[in-house]
Amino acid sequence: MDIQPTHLARPAPELEVAAWLNVAGPLSIAGLRGRIVLLHAFQMLCPGCVSHGIPQAASVHARFSARGVVTIGLHTVFEHHAVMGPEALAAFVGEYRLGMPVAVDRPSTEGPVPQTMTRYGFRGTPSLALIDHLGRLRSTAFGRVDDLTLGAALGQLVLERDQAAGGEAAGCTPFGCALPEQLP
Amino acid sequence: MDIQPTHLARPAPELEVAAWLNVAGPLSIAGLRGRIVLLHAFQMLCPGCVSHGIPQAASVHARFSARGVVTIGLHTVFEHHAVMGPEALAAFVGEYRLGMPVAVDRPSTEGPVPQTMTRYGFRGTPSLALIDHLGRLRSTAFGRVDDLTLGAALGQLVLERDQAAGGEAAGCTPFGCALPEQLP
Amino acid sequence: MDIQPTHLARPAPELEVAAWLNVAGPLSIAGLRGRIVLLHAFQMLCPGCVSHGIPQAASVHARFSARGVVTIGLHTVFEHHAVMGPEALAAFVGEYRLGMPVAVDRPSTEGPVPQTMTRYGFRGTPSLALIDHLGRLRSTAFGRVDDLTLGAALGQLVLERDQAAGGEAAGCTPFGCALPEQLP
Amino acid sequence: MDIQPTHLARPAPELEVAAWLNVAGPLSIAGLRGRIVLLHAFQMLCPGCVSHGIPQAASVHARFSARGVVTIGLHTVFEHHAVMGPEALAAFVGEYRLGMPVAVDRPSTEGPVPQTMTRYGFRGTPSLALIDHLGRLRSTAFGRVDDLTLGAALGQLVLERDQAAGGEAAGCTPFGCALPEQLP
Repeated sequence: MDIQPTHLARPAPELEVAAWLNVAGPLSIAGLRGRIVLLHAFQMLCPGCVSHGIPQAASVHARFSARGVVTIGLHTVFEHHAVMGPEALAAFVGEYRLGMPVAVDRPSTEGPVPQTMTRYGFRGTPSLALIDHLGRLRSTAFGRVDDLTLGAALGQLVLERDQAAGGEAAGCTPFGCALPEQLP
Repeated sequence: MDIQPTHLARPAPELEVAAWLNVAGPLSIAGLRGRIVLLHAFQMLCPGCVSHGIPQAASVHARFSARGVVTIGLHTVFEHHAVMGPEALAAFVGEYRLGMPVAVDRPSTEGPVPQTMTRYGFRGTPSLALIDHLGRLRSTAFGRVDDLTLGAALGQLVLERDQAAGGEAAGCTPFGCALPEQLP
Repeated sequence: MDIQPTHLARPAPELEVAAWLNVAGPLSIAGLRGRIVLLHAFQMLCPGCVSHGIPQAASVHARFSARGVVTIGLHTVFEHHAVMGPEALAAFVGEYRLGMPVAVDRPSTEGPVPQTMTRYGFRGTPSLALIDHLGRLRSTAFGRVDDLTLGAALGQLVLERDQAAGGEAAGCTPFGCALPEQLP
Repeated sequence: MDIQPTHLARPAPELEVAAWLNVAGPLSIAGLRGRIVLLHAFQMLCPGCVSHGIPQAASVHARFSARGVVTIGLHTVFEHHAVMGPEALAAFVGEYRLGMPVAVDRPSTEGPVPQTMTRYGFRGTPSLALIDHLGRLRSTAFGRVDDLTLGAALGQLVLERDQAAGGEAAGCTPFGCALPEQLP
């Protein structure tokens, strides 16, 4: 999961979403400027998503929300459309007690792959996309990404955002304004 | 595992080491200037070290060596000294096939806690310390740290180092000089 | 998961099944006389079933089929009926690559709980039922059962069956007719 | 882990033990007649023992003690003798909080392999041996044995013991004298 240099990164495509769960109103890449966005593309009947990707996204949501990272689950159905509709997804999200925002990728009229998935070029599920605080697409990955690697990418983007905000100069870090530890 | 702001961070204490394994010659904090150092304090008979800390350190060693992170296992024996001597440690390192540099913390003449452990103020095992590319102690943690959190801290320190080296300006990231991905 | 003494055990209720997957024709308790039956009640949207119960049933299917144990997955939908129909189940079984016989418990006309689930008195999912070679219901359990405990129950029922068949007298065990190991 | 038919099984070799931990006095195969014995051969510096074998033996100890199964950890040191002596073992057993009886296999005067290990023909660690209630060696295994398989073997031996004691005739099973469940 390499992070793209800023001068090479392109703007992240906007989301095309048919419905949202776990959130009061629609989210958008444009509206999340200033935040880091982790986009987790999944399907509810994808075993690797259920065993690895979704728990990882939920863990990022729990640990990094306070650091300005917004985690979005994107339900990118490209197979078994009839049995992974919005009602099935709502039952799934409820049974698995997911708390992060979940978006239903808008189906295409031209084929099985939904629109946001196409825009981002995801090759399957699970996939990840990382978008920086200026809305640039900095990384995408297909398949299993380990937590150390994903954490490192998040740490970099959080620091970039914080530096741009003058945080470090103010004596703060991306992870808060910590008092010095009292080491002996 | 909060990262200390740079202007508040103190210099990392130098290592006091009785013996080294897996490395041709002694390492030192001073000699590792320019690298990020992850110091993993463990005892070979500490269950939490064997089940979580050591595998995590080995994983960082495998994934982040190419990014300029040096992972050092520090055997900080503060109990059961008679059965965790250098010969026992060598057998342990061999049986567990550890490849990272391993240092034997130098025993104290004044008590059970060895010298480097005292200098760093570690409260037990496993413990972690993170030292930045300028030799500053930026974070310490006692007990289990999850991979996402440790990864984020490493990502931040790697980016700081790379920025200081002018890497980003040259079109490179902490994780290499990547070509832009060919997204649609 | 206590095993019921034989003189106290009641006959296992017959299955009421709307459809079968992974098997050429319908199975029945009556038709499986001579076999031990492990009935695993699950729902495809039940997290504990997906993470623990179904992998355990698949493991029993893989390890104990040759020992005369028939493992049956019973899809006992008692909630979210609209999104756990036969088509959704077929997609689920395909994506998770389940190889054991899977039965769709027949819906009730009187309420949400399907018919076989009611007959067996299952309190939820996952649940297990163990039926001996004479068709007697010897044990039921709701929730997570560890592998050692389930294995012990299976070992007992397999031995009973084998003893009834005269296996031990013929020099064989429930697990085959083993040559003596050549121990020193 | 096949179970040997009774008419082919040989008597289990007696233990040759230099020291015992976690038990008031020495145990012996002869003295355990009437019990099933699970012998778990391990070395404290064997990674597969620490990650799999010892937790499994501890789980059997916790779950099957009430069913007449005695689990014994046998420290069969055949390498690194200098650093796996009795004092090191005592520290290990304490740190890992093992509660089962642990025996130190008596060293041989003729080579590195200790005496009980030789008698049982164990090929390495971890290894298991199962001894029935009449003191017969019914199974041995080298390496990882899964819980379902070990459970099945234990269930068989427990049932054999109980049948010999007339338990089933008295309305009891190997797992206690259960009241019939109140199934609908």
